[in-house]
Amino acid sequence: MKRIKIKVPATVANMVCGFDILGMAIHEPYDEMEVKLTDSPEIIIKHEDHFGLPEDPSNNVAGVVLQHIQKDLNLTAGFEVTIRKHIKPGSGLGSSAASAAGAAFGANVLLGNILSKQELVHFAMFGEELASGVRHADNIAPCIYGGITLVKSTAPIDIIPLSTPDLFVIAVHPQVEVKTSDARQILKKNILFKDAIEQWGNIAGLVTGILKNDIPLIGRSLNDVIIEPVRSILIPKFGEIKTKSLRLGALGGGISGSGPSIFMLAKKKETAENIAGMMKSVYDDIGIESFVYISKINPVGIEIVEKEY
Amino acid sequence: MKRIKIKVPATVANMVCGFDILGMAIHEPYDEMEVKLTDSPEIIIKHEDHFGLPEDPSNNVAGVVLQHIQKDLNLTAGFEVTIRKHIKPGSGLGSSAASAAGAAFGANVLLGNILSKQELVHFAMFGEELASGVRHADNIAPCIYGGITLVKSTAPIDIIPLSTPDLFVIAVHPQVEVKTSDARQILKKNILFKDAIEQWGNIAGLVTGILKNDIPLIGRSLNDVIIEPVRSILIPKFGEIKTKSLRLGALGGGISGSGPSIFMLAKKKETAENIAGMMKSVYDDIGIESFVYISKINPVGIEIVEKEY
Repeated sequence: MKRIKIKVPATVANMVCGFDILGMAIHEPYDEMEVKLTDSPEIIIKHEDHFGLPEDPSNNVAGVVLQHIQKDLNLTAGFEVTIRKHIKPGSGLGSSAASAAGAAFGANVLLGNILSKQELVHFAMFGEELASGVRHADNIAPCIYGGITLVKSTAPIDIIPLSTPDLFVIAVHPQVEVKTSDARQILKKNILFKDAIEQWGNIAGLVTGILKNDIPLIGRSLNDVIIEPVRSILIPKFGEIKTKSLRLGALGGGISGSGPSIFMLAKKKETAENIAGMMKSVYDDIGIESFVYISKINPVGIEIVEKEY
Repeated sequence: MKRIKIKVPATVANMVCGFDILGMAIHEPYDEMEVKLTDSPEIIIKHEDHFGLPEDPSNNVAGVVLQHIQKDLNLTAGFEVTIRKHIKPGSGLGSSAASAAGAAFGANVLLGNILSKQELVHFAMFGEELASGVRHADNIAPCIYGGITLVKSTAPIDIIPLSTPDLFVIAVHPQVEVKTSDARQILKKNILFKDAIEQWGNIAGLVTGILKNDIPLIGRSLNDVIIEPVRSILIPKFGEIKTKSLRLGALGGGISGSGPSIFMLAKKKETAENIAGMMKSVYDDIGIESFVYISKINPVGIEIVEKEY
């Protein structure tokens, strides 16, 4: 029986000023997934973790992706997927995107790599739609392409891989709940034109910094005058963590996805470790459990760990 | 007496989706300026053209720039400037920026290149302030740096030179008046958040296309969902010219600065010439005189033609 084991990384969407368009893959945390191609047309999902996610394929992020692949490609075969999830649902670190992208990626390898990366994004977005009601690709794209990606549009799908600056990413996930739907609802439908101009100056600066590997430019472009001021209210200690991170030498950072995770970028390992320690202790002080991850930006995305056929 | 003759190029600000942040230098049209360093502290401005611009230095774009340079650098010397302007005031092709940038550039060469490009932008913005009331740099920056520039912010001045794709620029200047102040007033103070997201996806795409020399990406990023729909109303035949240009093979284009000039980008000379001919004939048909310019994107900006000292 054809089977594949993959590591599917967490992703940081938005990257401060790039709301809905930018995202990057990191190394830690990551999900482990095993995908098998089966003779029977059934789609079977098993979760070997403790998050209580639904295993009914029509109601499972990986399941709906595989249903669409099966239907669109007129497959007689089915899939059996085992997911050992380490990226916590609701963390803002692309947990649903990992399941969706991993399912599409794994199925495609087993089918002989017949789909393009763009088609993988197309199928994986059905998983995001199930999870959040929105067909967005800002986590899926970096998961599949690796590095930092620009989602120029999702209809039609237009993904542009940027580059992978040699930077550390520090992400903290405080154990509080911020629902994606709440984080979306809190945003205003109208924004000030002058704020939009400042924002797109920062986005253009960030993209240029990434492509030219101009680290100071990346740093001074990591400003969000539109979303962060509103959404950060939902995340305890956001302001304190950001201020202290910058003082410790972070280039910049902000909310990961729709939160509650917060990420920071840093050039040096020592700086990253100091920031990680500070993040942990800020949440310890107020009795909120937190998980902190340090890794480089992940240039590859999903990785094959084992393959058998 | 130290003197310098320079060619100061026209510039196209905004570049469709990059309102207030992007601009590019072109070769045609350009102003001719001669700047002399004089022993007496007077600043003398002479216009050898027919635009009737004020020659009183406090009321002249080049004059105020030189006044600020003279004062800030505690100069005992003065300047005599002769301007032969070919970039029509009010064309949307950076006429005031050319006078301002040319004055700063010329003075700096005569003073022994003591100012950085960023400082030249600082001084030249006093000219823009006189001309339009706003200290903006989207025309000044490409005039001084050449190529395509990103004005990330003006306070502090943060200019990032991008690259110069090998493309033709076709610009048409119909002889109608659009006041910069009107073009600014017509813009809304509030915009839809969803439009802003689409806009910054296009800006990120355009900057990436420019830096990676990805010409199709440049083409599909040249969309403005915020400013063009409003401002184009002020420009007769805008829609027809845009539609016909795209049909003739233009990559894309839109309003140059605040108009009334319209610019298009094209890969091939033949395409550029066809578009230029079409533009001319569209305006001929409705009895509006127009000037059409074809040139490559200008990688250099201001050029020294003669130098004596």
